[in-house]
Amino acid sequence: MNTKEKIEALGQLKSALYKKDFLLTWEKSETDLRAILEVAGILKDMRAQNISPRLFDSGLAISNFRDNSTRTRFSFASASNMLGMAVQDLDEEKSQIAHGETVRETANMISFMSDMIGIRDDMFLGEGNKYMREVGKALDEGFEKGVLPVRPGIVNLQCDIDHPTQSMADLMHLQAQFGSLENLKGKKIVMSWAYSPSYGKPLSVPQGIIGLMSRFGMNIELAYPEGYGLIPEVVELAKKNAVQSGGSLNVSHNMTDAMKDADIVYPKSWAPFHIMQQRTALLKNADKAGLKDLEQVCLANNAKFKDWEYDAAKMKVTKNQDALYMHCLPADISGVSCKEGEVNGDVFEKYRIKTYLEAGYKPYIIAAMMLTNRFENPSEVLMGLMNRNRKRVGV
Amino acid sequence: MNTKEKIEALGQLKSALYKKDFLLTWEKSETDLRAILEVAGILKDMRAQNISPRLFDSGLAISNFRDNSTRTRFSFASASNMLGMAVQDLDEEKSQIAHGETVRETANMISFMSDMIGIRDDMFLGEGNKYMREVGKALDEGFEKGVLPVRPGIVNLQCDIDHPTQSMADLMHLQAQFGSLENLKGKKIVMSWAYSPSYGKPLSVPQGIIGLMSRFGMNIELAYPEGYGLIPEVVELAKKNAVQSGGSLNVSHNMTDAMKDADIVYPKSWAPFHIMQQRTALLKNADKAGLKDLEQVCLANNAKFKDWEYDAAKMKVTKNQDALYMHCLPADISGVSCKEGEVNGDVFEKYRIKTYLEAGYKPYIIAAMMLTNRFENPSEVLMGLMNRNRKRVGV
Amino acid sequence: MNTKEKIEALGQLKSALYKKDFLLTWEKSETDLRAILEVAGILKDMRAQNISPRLFDSGLAISNFRDNSTRTRFSFASASNMLGMAVQDLDEEKSQIAHGETVRETANMISFMSDMIGIRDDMFLGEGNKYMREVGKALDEGFEKGVLPVRPGIVNLQCDIDHPTQSMADLMHLQAQFGSLENLKGKKIVMSWAYSPSYGKPLSVPQGIIGLMSRFGMNIELAYPEGYGLIPEVVELAKKNAVQSGGSLNVSHNMTDAMKDADIVYPKSWAPFHIMQQRTALLKNADKAGLKDLEQVCLANNAKFKDWEYDAAKMKVTKNQDALYMHCLPADISGVSCKEGEVNGDVFEKYRIKTYLEAGYKPYIIAAMMLTNRFENPSEVLMGLMNRNRKRVGV
Repeated sequence: MNTKEKIEALGQLKSALYKKDFLLTWEKSETDLRAILEVAGILKDMRAQNISPRLFDSGLAISNFRDNSTRTRFSFASASNMLGMAVQDLDEEKSQIAHGETVRETANMISFMSDMIGIRDDMFLGEGNKYMREVGKALDEGFEKGVLPVRPGIVNLQCDIDHPTQSMADLMHLQAQFGSLENLKGKKIVMSWAYSPSYGKPLSVPQGIIGLMSRFGMNIELAYPEGYGLIPEVVELAKKNAVQSGGSLNVSHNMTDAMKDADIVYPKSWAPFHIMQQRTALLKNADKAGLKDLEQVCLANNAKFKDWEYDAAKMKVTKNQDALYMHCLPADISGVSCKEGEVNGDVFEKYRIKTYLEAGYKPYIIAAMMLTNRFENPSEVLMGLMNRNRKRVGV
Repeated sequence: MNTKEKIEALGQLKSALYKKDFLLTWEKSETDLRAILEVAGILKDMRAQNISPRLFDSGLAISNFRDNSTRTRFSFASASNMLGMAVQDLDEEKSQIAHGETVRETANMISFMSDMIGIRDDMFLGEGNKYMREVGKALDEGFEKGVLPVRPGIVNLQCDIDHPTQSMADLMHLQAQFGSLENLKGKKIVMSWAYSPSYGKPLSVPQGIIGLMSRFGMNIELAYPEGYGLIPEVVELAKKNAVQSGGSLNVSHNMTDAMKDADIVYPKSWAPFHIMQQRTALLKNADKAGLKDLEQVCLANNAKFKDWEYDAAKMKVTKNQDALYMHCLPADISGVSCKEGEVNGDVFEKYRIKTYLEAGYKPYIIAAMMLTNRFENPSEVLMGLMNRNRKRVGV
Repeated sequence: MNTKEKIEALGQLKSALYKKDFLLTWEKSETDLRAILEVAGILKDMRAQNISPRLFDSGLAISNFRDNSTRTRFSFASASNMLGMAVQDLDEEKSQIAHGETVRETANMISFMSDMIGIRDDMFLGEGNKYMREVGKALDEGFEKGVLPVRPGIVNLQCDIDHPTQSMADLMHLQAQFGSLENLKGKKIVMSWAYSPSYGKPLSVPQGIIGLMSRFGMNIELAYPEGYGLIPEVVELAKKNAVQSGGSLNVSHNMTDAMKDADIVYPKSWAPFHIMQQRTALLKNADKAGLKDLEQVCLANNAKFKDWEYDAAKMKVTKNQDALYMHCLPADISGVSCKEGEVNGDVFEKYRIKTYLEAGYKPYIIAAMMLTNRFENPSEVLMGLMNRNRKRVGV
């Protein structure tokens, strides 16, 4: 299909994304998710054709990163710029959990001219997603009471529960690698814990992956050492999703066994749910000694599972000895970025460029989330851009 | 009046704002101030009608914040973006008082491509406004000598003396709440000190309020505990303004008495003038111990006036028990953001949304200051935008 | 010549700048350098005529400053904005020397939507330029493998070897002051070390100056106290350049003698090459004590050469007692910014505005480097802008 045909096909998808924040993929219908993928693909086409997708002659996109980030920050900046919005950073104290009046007021104060707000808040279990919803309610009130000329849309750039821009970019990568969403049906994807010399990595990536890939009929193997479980509710939800979509979700505790006949593998470290709970409590109390102790316990426990490295032997048992390796990056690469890590250096190198391609979908996914939030009829708007036919670069 | 009629009416105002920095409201004629309000109102209309006010195809607005700020930073970014300028931050050492060659050189080095410069410098009494004028002189020289293709305009985003973008936004709010500037004549506004658990809040807001509201025939009650006076020259000037405009300015020292029959109340903490003088001397000498001592003395003194809280009892004595409550935000709200503060929690909640509306005028005020600085005939330019009729959002 | 005639003349220059990073002036042909100057001049004309040079409807310019900077940061932001790109800062750990996988991955992760990347990395001898080339190779791979839709161009904003945006801006200033590049033939320029109370200033400015000015038939006098030599290879290269272009390069060790009959003087402090080598080794090992010791040794050594100040007596021996004084700013001005420094206060004041003019070319030079990197036919593109005739400011 050429770009205009894709836009026409998009017109058939009756999504409910308009004016809705994008906080969790499992709050969105399959149609919604497909619409995001289609819009992202069309924007990618337009870039290749040097057609400007600028929809905002002026406008602000607020980035609120309550945790460090380079990749997601750049993806958000890219998406905002692509559509014509300038990025304005809100730098709050990173360690601070703001609630109540402060959130309510700040949300309005930064939004008089805002069109979109991207929030990353993944450090505290039970807090990040909640915070985004608090911001959303404050914006609702501000818009209803005439404080805000526009209700800015919110995009979750990673919270304690989900990382939807990552998982959707990953899905778009799978769609490209396997030809279509339909081709993903029956494919085996292994979301596996992997060893890392660091600790405290958020749960949102594995949770986001099982929460989303379970929507498309895939057979998910969730593998981790005993004690490294995710948030139980998210695993339950993913199981239900899998059944509904004609796939499955199985939990197991041996990395090599899990990899057998896998089409896709996603080996990545995370901190156990119960540790994140303790960590959150310690962080709230700013208990530095407690945090230091917890880190030591965790690292010592992690060290028991150094064999949870994705290496040539494990690759060998996958489908055609060549399962698609995925990672949200940066990976802990043994002998490259650390002594012992999540993945063997040679194995990573084999799939390195593919992980870059995987990451490259994120700006388009974020832009698609923005566009579908702010425009009721994305198909019409995109066709308008095609017909306007303004060059992105050049005179 | 519709927007085009407003633009035509604006054409009748012969303002002298073109190429003049906006540093103090009392340096501007009433016509100038009215022109700013009109332009701000027209820009607000245009936003509601999705008409792009973009006047700069490219261009830089420099933000020079020598003190922390979220709200004003966002307002400046919003105004710049609205007109098409990209914001570039100048991050100088916050604690440093630069003068002479450094100011002269830096002012030119950042301005080769600058159209506007916003400066916030409110920490040192006797320094902020002076600094802005030094920058202005350096820019004058640079432009005259052919260093700069354009003489960038300066907007005072808060200094030691005035906070004109705040007071003008407040005036625009009063205009909206009371129907017109004319309706403000004879209204009683109480600019009152209020208790806060913090210390060292700048004098620029209360000074800005009495310096501006005294231009429009209002009866100003300036209330504070003995010893909490403002810069004497500013109070004198406001008194003269009040007499000229047919209003009055009275200084008193009892919060409840001051509130009687008030139409508008503005209870807000500030540090006494003589304390700010001592503080400036200590800051200049980087005398940390001295600053710590001064803070203790001040906080102890403040604590004698905890009854200077705007509460239900004080609200009761105002006009119809319902004077318009104003604040530049964030307020110290008793039981919400602090134990005991400037305003009672229930009273604040009653007017909370109105304080958000009040704040919402600031981006338009700043944009109006920029537009009138850079364009000789704002009416013509705004009519040009209306006729161009380009969408702010959409294709 | 009017602007359109200049653009036509530019069309005759067959430069090879398209898709080539700008890392060292001596990697570029004289035609390339002339093309950059011509494009910069045309962009300056267009600004004076209020013609918008915007070529990017959207697009990102990444600024990667591995060292502090105000001036170059603003010049880069100005150039990016002029052409329509938004600046996105990459803030890496300043003290970190990244190599290998980290560079390769990060270069791609920030570039999915990037058009240009500006890098400043001047702290470590042997590292900065190398790092830029590593980034370039990573971008080449990303583009070839389909990760990046565009291969972003790199502009060297100062490295350990060269500072091409500075030296090219300086050349543009000389062209304006002396009427033409041809008029520079036979002119004597003195690149002289000067005393400064600080230590560790990079070598890239003097190296950039001798490496570039030697291309245009000038007679270069490189003067410094014994032991303050530059990178030997760069001096050799400049000598060869000088011979080829019909000029000369002489090294000497007496400031006053060097200044005799000079047309142009560039007195500026730098750290000796062998000290920078030691410093780099210490920085790599994060040897704070060693760095402190080295600083003391250096400052003590510098102090022996306090008479290496450019003062009235030295000015007196120059051509007509009025050689053009140049500096990349900020200068260490005796009695102004320091007690004893690189230049006498009165002498500096005489040429102060000219140093501002000198600095003012940098945004145009950077924009010209960007434009020639991204457009194969700059003449055609610039003529397109003239014919489009869109106002930069106004409706």
